[in-house]
Amino acid sequence: MSHAHETHREKAPKKLGFYVITVSTSRYQKLSRREPVVDESGDKIKEIIISNGHDLKGYNLVPDDKIRILKAVIDALLTEGVDVIVTTGGTGYTPSDLTVETIRGVLDREVEGFRDVFRGLSLSDPKVGPAAYLSKASAGIIAGKLIYMLPGSPDAVKLGMEKLIIPEAPHLVYLARSI
Amino acid sequence: MSHAHETHREKAPKKLGFYVITVSTSRYQKLSRREPVVDESGDKIKEIIISNGHDLKGYNLVPDDKIRILKAVIDALLTEGVDVIVTTGGTGYTPSDLTVETIRGVLDREVEGFRDVFRGLSLSDPKVGPAAYLSKASAGIIAGKLIYMLPGSPDAVKLGMEKLIIPEAPHLVYLARSI
Amino acid sequence: MSHAHETHREKAPKKLGFYVITVSTSRYQKLSRREPVVDESGDKIKEIIISNGHDLKGYNLVPDDKIRILKAVIDALLTEGVDVIVTTGGTGYTPSDLTVETIRGVLDREVEGFRDVFRGLSLSDPKVGPAAYLSKASAGIIAGKLIYMLPGSPDAVKLGMEKLIIPEAPHLVYLARSI
Amino acid sequence: MSHAHETHREKAPKKLGFYVITVSTSRYQKLSRREPVVDESGDKIKEIIISNGHDLKGYNLVPDDKIRILKAVIDALLTEGVDVIVTTGGTGYTPSDLTVETIRGVLDREVEGFRDVFRGLSLSDPKVGPAAYLSKASAGIIAGKLIYMLPGSPDAVKLGMEKLIIPEAPHLVYLARSI
Amino acid sequence: MSHAHETHREKAPKKLGFYVITVSTSRYQKLSRREPVVDESGDKIKEIIISNGHDLKGYNLVPDDKIRILKAVIDALLTEGVDVIVTTGGTGYTPSDLTVETIRGVLDREVEGFRDVFRGLSLSDPKVGPAAYLSKASAGIIAGKLIYMLPGSPDAVKLGMEKLIIPEAPHLVYLARSI
Amino acid sequence: MSHAHETHREKAPKKLGFYVITVSTSRYQKLSRREPVVDESGDKIKEIIISNGHDLKGYNLVPDDKIRILKAVIDALLTEGVDVIVTTGGTGYTPSDLTVETIRGVLDREVEGFRDVFRGLSLSDPKVGPAAYLSKASAGIIAGKLIYMLPGSPDAVKLGMEKLIIPEAPHLVYLARSI
Ligand SMILES: [Mg+2]
Ligand SMILES: [Mg+2]
Ligand SMILES: [Mg+2]
Ligand SMILES: [Mg+2]
Repeated sequence: MSHAHETHREKAPKKLGFYVITVSTSRYQKLSRREPVVDESGDKIKEIIISNGHDLKGYNLVPDDKIRILKAVIDALLTEGVDVIVTTGGTGYTPSDLTVETIRGVLDREVEGFRDVFRGLSLSDPKVGPAAYLSKASAGIIAGKLIYMLPGSPDAVKLGMEKLIIPEAPHLVYLARSI
Repeated sequence: MSHAHETHREKAPKKLGFYVITVSTSRYQKLSRREPVVDESGDKIKEIIISNGHDLKGYNLVPDDKIRILKAVIDALLTEGVDVIVTTGGTGYTPSDLTVETIRGVLDREVEGFRDVFRGLSLSDPKVGPAAYLSKASAGIIAGKLIYMLPGSPDAVKLGMEKLIIPEAPHLVYLARSI
Repeated sequence: MSHAHETHREKAPKKLGFYVITVSTSRYQKLSRREPVVDESGDKIKEIIISNGHDLKGYNLVPDDKIRILKAVIDALLTEGVDVIVTTGGTGYTPSDLTVETIRGVLDREVEGFRDVFRGLSLSDPKVGPAAYLSKASAGIIAGKLIYMLPGSPDAVKLGMEKLIIPEAPHLVYLARSI
Repeated sequence: MSHAHETHREKAPKKLGFYVITVSTSRYQKLSRREPVVDESGDKIKEIIISNGHDLKGYNLVPDDKIRILKAVIDALLTEGVDVIVTTGGTGYTPSDLTVETIRGVLDREVEGFRDVFRGLSLSDPKVGPAAYLSKASAGIIAGKLIYMLPGSPDAVKLGMEKLIIPEAPHLVYLARSI
Repeated sequence: MSHAHETHREKAPKKLGFYVITVSTSRYQKLSRREPVVDESGDKIKEIIISNGHDLKGYNLVPDDKIRILKAVIDALLTEGVDVIVTTGGTGYTPSDLTVETIRGVLDREVEGFRDVFRGLSLSDPKVGPAAYLSKASAGIIAGKLIYMLPGSPDAVKLGMEKLIIPEAPHLVYLARSI
Repeated sequence: MSHAHETHREKAPKKLGFYVITVSTSRYQKLSRREPVVDESGDKIKEIIISNGHDLKGYNLVPDDKIRILKAVIDALLTEGVDVIVTTGGTGYTPSDLTVETIRGVLDREVEGFRDVFRGLSLSDPKVGPAAYLSKASAGIIAGKLIYMLPGSPDAVKLGMEKLIIPEAPHLVYLARSI
């Protein structure tokens, strides 16, 4: 109902706690060898979080490994003040891409529309177009908190954060917590 | 095949029997207390059914409760002359929203494209835009009849009925019954 | 990552081996009775494969029958030099349509975005529009090879081949094979 | 924990409300033609319920039809005082057997051990033996109530009621309601 | 119903057509190198089929490879006069064991009791005992025909054939074909 | 194959690293309040591990909470030298029991026979009998390591450890690691 929606939006929290997880084997290996690591997508997510007045509660960089990804997600869920987790990377179709498959196994509820709307926007972005079908952004709810899984490219991350997460996460956090 | 499609459209029934189910705990409670209930979305669905020359075979108002929703769907399926059931409400992400999850368990076949196309249209509607990912319209076939699950807002109901259900349900009823 | 993507595209194979499977009971029956068979959609797929410099490694025409569809897919997978299988037909909602349901059972991984993007393009095609929800194109990976399941109409086949398969299959074949 | 188990047993309700549903197309057709119907298995379930001091809250006879089965289950769930529903029939492998497949779609939780233990007992019953694998008893929880699905033969019904349902249902009702 | 069961047994076919598939990478490699291959379990299945008066319609030996297993099953289903397919091998828990996982994807219906009853018998066999949990025999129905998946050992094959398949397959074939 | 099985047993590791997780809200709350906690089942598991010559690599006590259970499992998987994780508790049918449902979401492969064989043994144990269907032991493989989920009672833990885990885990660890 439109009225109800406006009421929800008013009651939704203004400031959210975010936790960012970059999934990238190559960056993780550099980090392990103490080489300098550039994480352009992770940095962009953090920058958008902060410039929109939200809090960055934590950050982690993990390889494309099921157990490491799960550990990072659980650690984020147990970090005080976290409302929203955003991952970047591991959403494609090489055999090593398994971020979405791994995290789906622990969701309480998938926000199935996110995949769809993210791809709809990518499809109409001239830099992506039909290649939008090669990736699978996703989102879900776990223990009353949101988790968004974005592709690894800085453009995808910018699109997901600016068009979908920043505008709607406060409302969705409010809904997920309601009883 | 385009020819086949045109033939199907010719053979498709012109007049369908509809049954409308509003899923809304707040309205149901008002009704139980014998207070006046305004069901703007339910009314809009009925109005669009009738103004398009179809028959309204029944209407029900139920709370966001799994057993009550199932009962309403079964009663509609057993009502003489019903071809299409339309529900409104319970498609979001509060813990009490369970219309789609409940009804999916009894579908013979999900019409998976409906979710997608409904969201595609919502996304390009300036009143909704990316918030389209916060809801999950759905559709399916059960015992040769169609069931469409629409969100609770009057705008969503208007979009679903006018752009997707009225134009295509006769054809889909015809397909679902074919052997 | 955009750089990574460009590198992938450079390394992706330029020439792919295709195998085409038309799923159509009416055409199969004509063929069995040795009557002339026109397979407009199958022909269009072959034409687009060849005019884009790829190889046609095989073709099969099967009825809407689970075992015959599976046999055709397995035969295609075992044909030397095949990278991509394209099926046309059996993607709708009559009880006999079962191409997608059958093939999903043997995929290693579904390329879930394909359904979505195919429908997004159909929705914005004035010849299809909201009727896009009546069909379900799909794609997946099996044993390192791609399989695309397209609807039966020549227009759908043209859209799928020209906008989605020809431009992206080389890249996706490369990704599916990577380790 | 053994102590906990004994405590549970003490707190478990002594008298339960049962609802019996016989699923049998041949008996349903006789009933529809107003011919006399013998429902040996349904009668045996009722007799065991009563001779064990429980209450019979209702009884229904339905054909092997998905919608009729669902309607009977929903009606039973909405009958005042019902704690346990027992169905008999439709658990085998003819194409018309669909009791378990239908009801599984609406369970909140399957009591997966029931299938197993029922078959273990059938296997060691000399009248059944290895033929135990031709049937699939099942059980689950829906809206805090139990539903047991038994095969159609009087022997199977006697075994399920006397060895598994009468001794353990009070405890399981107590567990399913706990928080 | 016991009477019904006896009637079924009378009407059940007396002579069935069997097809045997051995899944074993080591034996397949020997065969490919034209070395002599001993397939003790495959031989035992064939011997039991014939000594019980049934027909052996075909035999195949394939490696632990998804596509090769599927091809063998499809070929068997398309062989004239086949009612029952029996596979041996690939039912354990090494990463290469995938017979059951592969075949489940194409079943119309799993005969879920078979796993259970097979394990129940193995458990009470002193040569197996609790090690019964390390393997997963299975059975199902596909296109009106039965498929049994047995472990690779001669003892397991003997148990499955003599206690479960020979006594009950005629009845189950009859049920699976009924309407 | 029986020979193969004997060879496997010879090659299987003799000494395994175990990690024990007790899932019990009441014990966890006592621990949080610094009251003395008796964990009879956890202690019995540890005792059986050690008296059989295996190593105890770690122990954890967590409440019936999805995130805490997942964290304990991930921590165990990342502990040096762990081959086998054993949990006790949370396997019943109160709404708070969710050990098995939680852990299944992260398994690479379920060892489905374990449920069955555990229940078969419980059924023939006069102290349990048909009540065996009220609980659901389970087992699976994750990242090449085993995880067994046992009920919370000391008797169930003793049965599972002595009859199923101690005798077969070395062999199963060997199989799960093989390629
Ligand atoms: Mg990556
Ligand atoms: Mg879309
Ligand atoms: Mg069993
Ligand atoms: Mg083997």
